[in-house]
Amino acid sequence: MKVLDTRSPTFETDFEVLLARGKMDMKEVSKVVQGLLDDIVQNGLEALKSHIARFDMWEARDFKDICIAPQECKQAYDNLSLELKSALHLAYDRIYAFHQKQKAKSWIDCEESGSILGSKLTPMDRAGLYIPGGKAAYPSSLLMNAIPAIVAGVREIVVCTPAPHNEPNPLLLAALHLCGITEVYKIGGASAIGLMAYGCEGIKKVDVVTGPGNIYVACAKKLVFGDVNIDMIAGPSEIGIIADSSANPRYVAYDLLSQAEHDEMASSILISDSASLIESVQKHINEILPTIPRVKIAQASIDNRAVMIQTRNLGESIEIANALAPEHLEILTNAPFESLPYIKHAGAIFLGEYSSEPIGDYLAGPNHTLPTGGSARFFSPLGVEHFMKKSSIISFSSNALKEVGESCALLAQCESLNAHAQAVLVRLDDIRKINTK
Amino acid sequence: MKVLDTRSPTFETDFEVLLARGKMDMKEVSKVVQGLLDDIVQNGLEALKSHIARFDMWEARDFKDICIAPQECKQAYDNLSLELKSALHLAYDRIYAFHQKQKAKSWIDCEESGSILGSKLTPMDRAGLYIPGGKAAYPSSLLMNAIPAIVAGVREIVVCTPAPHNEPNPLLLAALHLCGITEVYKIGGASAIGLMAYGCEGIKKVDVVTGPGNIYVACAKKLVFGDVNIDMIAGPSEIGIIADSSANPRYVAYDLLSQAEHDEMASSILISDSASLIESVQKHINEILPTIPRVKIAQASIDNRAVMIQTRNLGESIEIANALAPEHLEILTNAPFESLPYIKHAGAIFLGEYSSEPIGDYLAGPNHTLPTGGSARFFSPLGVEHFMKKSSIISFSSNALKEVGESCALLAQCESLNAHAQAVLVRLDDIRKINTK
Repeated sequence: MKVLDTRSPTFETDFEVLLARGKMDMKEVSKVVQGLLDDIVQNGLEALKSHIARFDMWEARDFKDICIAPQECKQAYDNLSLELKSALHLAYDRIYAFHQKQKAKSWIDCEESGSILGSKLTPMDRAGLYIPGGKAAYPSSLLMNAIPAIVAGVREIVVCTPAPHNEPNPLLLAALHLCGITEVYKIGGASAIGLMAYGCEGIKKVDVVTGPGNIYVACAKKLVFGDVNIDMIAGPSEIGIIADSSANPRYVAYDLLSQAEHDEMASSILISDSASLIESVQKHINEILPTIPRVKIAQASIDNRAVMIQTRNLGESIEIANALAPEHLEILTNAPFESLPYIKHAGAIFLGEYSSEPIGDYLAGPNHTLPTGGSARFFSPLGVEHFMKKSSIISFSSNALKEVGESCALLAQCESLNAHAQAVLVRLDDIRKINTK
Repeated sequence: MKVLDTRSPTFETDFEVLLARGKMDMKEVSKVVQGLLDDIVQNGLEALKSHIARFDMWEARDFKDICIAPQECKQAYDNLSLELKSALHLAYDRIYAFHQKQKAKSWIDCEESGSILGSKLTPMDRAGLYIPGGKAAYPSSLLMNAIPAIVAGVREIVVCTPAPHNEPNPLLLAALHLCGITEVYKIGGASAIGLMAYGCEGIKKVDVVTGPGNIYVACAKKLVFGDVNIDMIAGPSEIGIIADSSANPRYVAYDLLSQAEHDEMASSILISDSASLIESVQKHINEILPTIPRVKIAQASIDNRAVMIQTRNLGESIEIANALAPEHLEILTNAPFESLPYIKHAGAIFLGEYSSEPIGDYLAGPNHTLPTGGSARFFSPLGVEHFMKKSSIISFSSNALKEVGESCALLAQCESLNAHAQAVLVRLDDIRKINTK
């Protein structure tokens, strides 16, 4: 584990590397991905079949072969143990409840002059969720992507997920049943994003594509952005932990490791003003590491990507955290809520020693799809808003128009848009005529 | 003007063309734009200077040359006529008031188990607004982009705008003073987007880039998306008008023409169940067209892009409007609010005969930056939300963790993420020990 000290003269330079952790060079990947997308647009089902053969190593004969039938999902759900069923339901209910609270409403505001202004919120018609498969299956990702869409009121929810060797993950199937999703295609990667964004024989294009994935998926999402909306462009997962001397080093070690086991590229960053805590956390990590089943991945991540930053004081720890804008931020200090007002950039903020990050991954309620690599400076967690959009409402009475019409026409004339001005002035003329009658 | 009839056997085919109006093929443009962006990143100020010489036809000697000084803006503001000052202030105040009402608040929700969940809203640190110049100047665009950023609480607002021949538009300068914006650079097009997204000597990168522009600007915004956030990718402006036989054909004609005068590529679309209204609107357009100063542009737009769609009834008119998802939608019918619940996709909805679209362009209050080309299916008007982002808040007490910890660990194990499970289980163990003491 690398240890940095804010008092070191080389700190700024070392820290620059950390700040640039989110940089994804997509130029090369982009060519490959654009090729896959074009293939889907031009060759439809045939392209899908060839991508499946190439990436998932099975032969899809026809359209039906690519679909997962609702009965398969129900079967998988019925086969779950009671404990697992109840855990999934608990997660579903808590995530649903949180997202319900987050759902914004249409509103209007009436002025006495007779105008009505406002904003109408409407769910998107059709949403496409990408759920990675391959090395592992993530039913939690399905819940986190599907529930905001369900709460938003999206009528058509499509899921794409790769099924290597044509063996979809049973737990994912069960979660699909739980979410009531019946349109599911066994296709992964950039091809899946292309299928959802552009459609093909029998599959309509969607309005929004969400969901995690590797750099090919991220790149495909960027390329289709504008033709559809997307949630965000995400990279490897990461955690920042602000801890003082009161923190439990074992908890800190486990939370850092739970990030490290995700991915060799995952970043686990401890920020502390306590040298003894940093030392103690390192010891715990070295002890725990060999006991983790995913030791290889976690070891690589810890060796290459983990950083411990020794700071002068809590204020500086917060500054460092804001500069990093981490996906997950834990505050394990004496009085964590006292720091909350100063936290500017983080995907999700976990406060206090019992708010272990994995709670947020599965069932606390808030979404686990969060901005990575410093993009919490400008991206928000996935939410109901990503599945809705707004239309402004503007209604003016003759009286309301009379009050502002001349000014409006003047501004239009200043921008050399005379028909704009005239459109208002002809109405003002008519209103005057009516009023003087 | 093209006239389509929903009863015609070729309607579907003709309508497909209209639905595809928003398609922008950026593949070729993209190479040029990527070159400009790379140049800015690699050569900084030197690149800026050469782009200015090439596109704006003047020689910038140094960094200071590219800046617009606040005194210049104040001077321009002081030189305004009283009428224009008051019109600008009226616009500012109305836009400000509307966006204030739209601003969302941070919130938390406390559960009796001892958990606190919520969402913290924070303004972005630094926003970059692009305001086109060249053919015409758009102070209204500045107000519409700056005010939501100001209401959001963004501390650093940067503006880029081209100044052909080094002659910035005085009205735009005045609006900059009114908005209190003091960091302004005379640079346009893709170069401006690159400068804001990546920074260069002395100019820090921003977190979000917003603002209108041509296809080069749109393409640049797409390319920098992910490195910064952007508002949307927009194309030529457009209006859809749903009108029945009660509509005033002269108003309809002016509103269609006020869209047409924007741009040869602008689309003006009338949707009506009244054949006589369509006929009458056409007559008015032909009469008014020669009287418009921008007749050339408007004529080209009307000839090539305007469409009148004859429908069977109001219900069908609404269906057509939803399929088009126009940037601006006017409802000029007997009882416009009765249609509102059925309007699913539109950037802004103008209800009733006095709600002429130009009112929304300048001073009704809602933003005039709206999704075009059918992207109102998934994009929203520019708003305060584009200058803020959210962090989820998660705080669990020992008691709250006890209630859900086992289920969380089980789900983590199902996803083969054992360190995740352990991070929760070690805490549960400790809680049990404390409780049994």
